Amino acid sequence: GQIEGCIECHECAKRCEANAIAYTMQDEHIEIDAGAIILATGLDLYDVSPLTEYGYGKIKNVVTAIEFERLTAASGPTFGELKRPSDGKIPHAIAFIQCVGSRDFKHKAYCSSVCCMHATKEAILAYEHHPGTKSTIFYMDLRAVGKRFQEYVTRAKEDYNVTYIRSRPGMVAVNPENQNPIVWYEDTTTTETKNMEVDLVVLCQAMTPRGSKELAEILDIKLNEYGFVEVPDKLSHPVDSTRPGIFACGYVHSPRDIPDSVTQGSGAAARAAEVIAGGN
Amino acid sequence: GQIEGCIECHECAKRCEANAIAYTMQDEHIEIDAGAIILATGLDLYDVSPLTEYGYGKIKNVVTAIEFERLTAASGPTFGELKRPSDGKIPHAIAFIQCVGSRDFKHKAYCSSVCCMHATKEAILAYEHHPGTKSTIFYMDLRAVGKRFQEYVTRAKEDYNVTYIRSRPGMVAVNPENQNPIVWYEDTTTTETKNMEVDLVVLCQAMTPRGSKELAEILDIKLNEYGFVEVPDKLSHPVDSTRPGIFACGYVHSPRDIPDSVTQGSGAAARAAEVIAGGN
Repeated sequence: GQIEGCIECHECAKRCEANAIAYTMQDEHIEIDAGAIILATGLDLYDVSPLTEYGYGKIKNVVTAIEFERLTAASGPTFGELKRPSDGKIPHAIAFIQCVGSRDFKHKAYCSSVCCMHATKEAILAYEHHPGTKSTIFYMDLRAVGKRFQEYVTRAKEDYNVTYIRSRPGMVAVNPENQNPIVWYEDTTTTETKNMEVDLVVLCQAMTPRGSKELAEILDIKLNEYGFVEVPDKLSHPVDSTRPGIFACGYVHSPRDIPDSVTQGSGAAARAAEVIAGGN
Repeated sequence: GQIEGCIECHECAKRCEANAIAYTMQDEHIEIDAGAIILATGLDLYDVSPLTEYGYGKIKNVVTAIEFERLTAASGPTFGELKRPSDGKIPHAIAFIQCVGSRDFKHKAYCSSVCCMHATKEAILAYEHHPGTKSTIFYMDLRAVGKRFQEYVTRAKEDYNVTYIRSRPGMVAVNPENQNPIVWYEDTTTTETKNMEVDLVVLCQAMTPRGSKELAEILDIKLNEYGFVEVPDKLSHPVDSTRPGIFACGYVHSPRDIPDSVTQGSGAAARAAEVIAGGN
């Protein structure tokens, strides 16, 4: 398959009602006349190696959230078996560290928005792989903002052995005997500095708008200082860019999850139709 | 004016490009044939009087966030002068209590979603009325999820004298000598129980979907247990209800703020157009 990780199971082709999946398609450059443009390039992952305190790249059993996602995926390097990198052992205790690079003025000041719920999903997934798995999510503010999100967190706590600790861990060390990462943090219920030895640490890294800089130059639209598409009128024209006829949706517009991105996509389509029909 | 609080300044009529403001219009019942229906009824405020620990209705200088909004509005009972109810004094110290009725299994389990940012806006507003005003926001998790929201909170802290304390206060008492409310809470940095005497307490109450129960019966659509419109396919059809051709947007769909509601409105319009044009 041309797409990285594609195992050509053809499941997506079977499910796509619009019949839009073509496995043999090659890259093409196409010139088209368009009455409107919708930007929907999605996100990139922020490189976490400069955050040396978390040991990524140095401590084997420290992975990013996306790497963890791959470790649980049927099409991933372990064929869906959740095993830790150092020795292939099943991780029974997993720590998720939120806001790695997000809400951090040395890196990205904004909230990446989807990580709290993504980590919750991953912790539930880990439990479903190996019932009894103990996941701990270290967070700054638990941002369960969205339909059913608060209830999802409650379910994670009650049914999937997930514990949430409010703390931004200061350091991840390693136990040289078993390669277990050790998370150092302040317990805010007692104000004591504590540590927790786990089998695996998952860093929930910041996300950034994909390819927006290059596109902004080509299209002559403004971005904000983090590279998100600048929206001059957030209240009455929330998907409009600084240039008429160019709209944006999804993560390139602002940090947001799938349902909100799909809604924005539908909204942007309506705006594009309006413009093409002669409105503004 | 027919609308409560309308001072008939005719500013809205001047600003409405579609010329849709009619001051003398009477209520009418109209029967129309429609190819699609979009529900956008907005929100109602949850009654906070059963939460007796906060003293609403008993302690004069405890108001709700919406009452506070009215106290700062030019068309409000004080003509825009921010004065506290008991004696008309300017409140120099204001406490905002978040999640009053929200994220509370005895009341509404869900996060009402807009209150953290609304309180931040109100605290900034108070400072703009009376520079030097000290606002304290007692919160459970600071839910600054949205474009520029994290930066807005930082600005509130740095430029508008706003302090955020993570705590769900257990009680509001009153100083009988000056009618000052006293907020009792746990200081999570020291684990001590503390109190803070302020001039005014603002309760940021839960919000509920407006009129959804009656509409659901008429339209034969499903709601969730909190009265929000049930969406069977959140990922691929995020504004569709359980009945084809009926869509929902804004707070009646789920707790969400104005830009997201406008985006949903645009998305729902696109879906309605699709259905009317013969798609699904």
